[in-house]
Amino acid sequence: MTETVRLREVGMRDGLQSIATVVPTEVKLAWLDAEYAAGVREIEVSSFVPPKLLPQLADAEAVVRHAMTLPGLKVSALIPNSRGAERGLALGVPEMNFVLSVSEGHNLSNVRRTTEESIEDFRRVVRLCRDSGKNARINCGLATSFGCTIEGDVDEDRVRRIAGEVAEAGADGIILADTVGYGQPAAIERVFRKVIADLAPLPIAAHFHDTRGLGLANVLAAFNAGCREFDASLGGLGGCPYAPGATGNIVMEDTAFLFESMGLDTGIDIDALVEVRRIIARALPEVTLYGAIAKAGLPRNFHPVAEAA
Amino acid sequence: MTETVRLREVGMRDGLQSIATVVPTEVKLAWLDAEYAAGVREIEVSSFVPPKLLPQLADAEAVVRHAMTLPGLKVSALIPNSRGAERGLALGVPEMNFVLSVSEGHNLSNVRRTTEESIEDFRRVVRLCRDSGKNARINCGLATSFGCTIEGDVDEDRVRRIAGEVAEAGADGIILADTVGYGQPAAIERVFRKVIADLAPLPIAAHFHDTRGLGLANVLAAFNAGCREFDASLGGLGGCPYAPGATGNIVMEDTAFLFESMGLDTGIDIDALVEVRRIIARALPEVTLYGAIAKAGLPRNFHPVAEAA
Repeated sequence: MTETVRLREVGMRDGLQSIATVVPTEVKLAWLDAEYAAGVREIEVSSFVPPKLLPQLADAEAVVRHAMTLPGLKVSALIPNSRGAERGLALGVPEMNFVLSVSEGHNLSNVRRTTEESIEDFRRVVRLCRDSGKNARINCGLATSFGCTIEGDVDEDRVRRIAGEVAEAGADGIILADTVGYGQPAAIERVFRKVIADLAPLPIAAHFHDTRGLGLANVLAAFNAGCREFDASLGGLGGCPYAPGATGNIVMEDTAFLFESMGLDTGIDIDALVEVRRIIARALPEVTLYGAIAKAGLPRNFHPVAEAA
Repeated sequence: MTETVRLREVGMRDGLQSIATVVPTEVKLAWLDAEYAAGVREIEVSSFVPPKLLPQLADAEAVVRHAMTLPGLKVSALIPNSRGAERGLALGVPEMNFVLSVSEGHNLSNVRRTTEESIEDFRRVVRLCRDSGKNARINCGLATSFGCTIEGDVDEDRVRRIAGEVAEAGADGIILADTVGYGQPAAIERVFRKVIADLAPLPIAAHFHDTRGLGLANVLAAFNAGCREFDASLGGLGGCPYAPGATGNIVMEDTAFLFESMGLDTGIDIDALVEVRRIIARALPEVTLYGAIAKAGLPRNFHPVAEAA
């Protein structure tokens, strides 16, 4: 029995949101279709933020609508607040991701609320969704779970406590996020083990950035702790435009290669996924795409899992 | 009690040997001194290959002699054969590294001998060293332990058997090498566990390349299997000059960061190590230096192990 790992593409949201050049909607749809064709079955396609704040994602409705036509694709969108949730519910988006920061300082700076106030917001969003009768899944991302650019250390017991509170509030899944690329494998394995043990069978996903080169080591650590759901972005899209050379999200192609090479089924055709990079390279020639497998190619001892199965 | 991990710089040998521009001896000595000052205590400083074959390392004697003046530095050099061992013994180099390939095809293509013939060569080298009364340590590197560009898969039992044979021959340590960047964490953890269990307390070190982005995940896997000695090179020096963009050895600075961030003592001052890159950048402006920590800097939640101790 081949074990399965689920990879979620977040480049269309987390990647694009930091890029000033607005990508035309038709390019986003081509990207969506191509990743879907390469076997990707979970995509966070956009964010329901006010279009004036983020022109890049002003076409959220169009992108979500198209994504929902692809059979078997788990479509999700980020929601910053209740208004975002209302937009998602109106569209019938099947899954929404709310985000709050475990670090008080980061949450205050980001949304001018305490973490406790954001948890209360999350409770309201969950109630809104339940009351709508739409059956949408609501996940909660816990940003800065492994360190914070403002506070430095983030207490592991606080991560665990807040995970418990959002689970209690009705989260359908939790995403432990290393938003700023501060995570290291020992802490990640420890926290994932604890939160998974506390909240099983609630799905606990990982959202890591590769800012300091530990991205895939961190993925392995979370995997060893029992995590089976990982966010990643094509070409590592999502580097901060103000920090040249700083990579963003872990690279989707390399993450798929990591798992497939270990004999785990991601459902992804890596060569086909690498080809999708051309769409982004054409649309955003000024943006650096990261990733090792795109440069080096698959090794001769690579056996795709789907083929073996 | 803080646990220790030993990192060995191999850029002066494995890195430089693939670079055509000959680095002046005084630059190599400055590099040596600077890494030593940053806390690095194991360096493979050169290779005793025929100077005509590899002009880059023609100054092996001068570099080894200087390195041996640095107190507490574990100095080693690569030896391709008995003649190399004789040069090393004449100099009194304390540690030598012989290499053979587990993959028959790779060994034949590399040194025109079967693997069994190379094991016999290793036996001769060990005898030569023992007979010299010089007390030099002799390690054996097993190249292509995790896959081969010629043969593809490499049988794990064959790695284990050959490791046993070179241990039996008198190796003071074994280096399991992913020469071509084909390794993946599950195989690496499995093979390291077996070989360590077979041969304990013989030191089993890891030599990994980051060609396909899994370098540090592979390091973590070997660490989880009990490995505590790792080769790496400053700036990932050692990329194949015929494969632009293909990174070489795992990056020394990032590997030190991986372990120090996990609370393991490498003895290395990472900021000081990052500064050493300037020496290489000046001497080899055409060579790409890799590494994430050099770009992103240490995170605010980083606590150097030496300081805490």
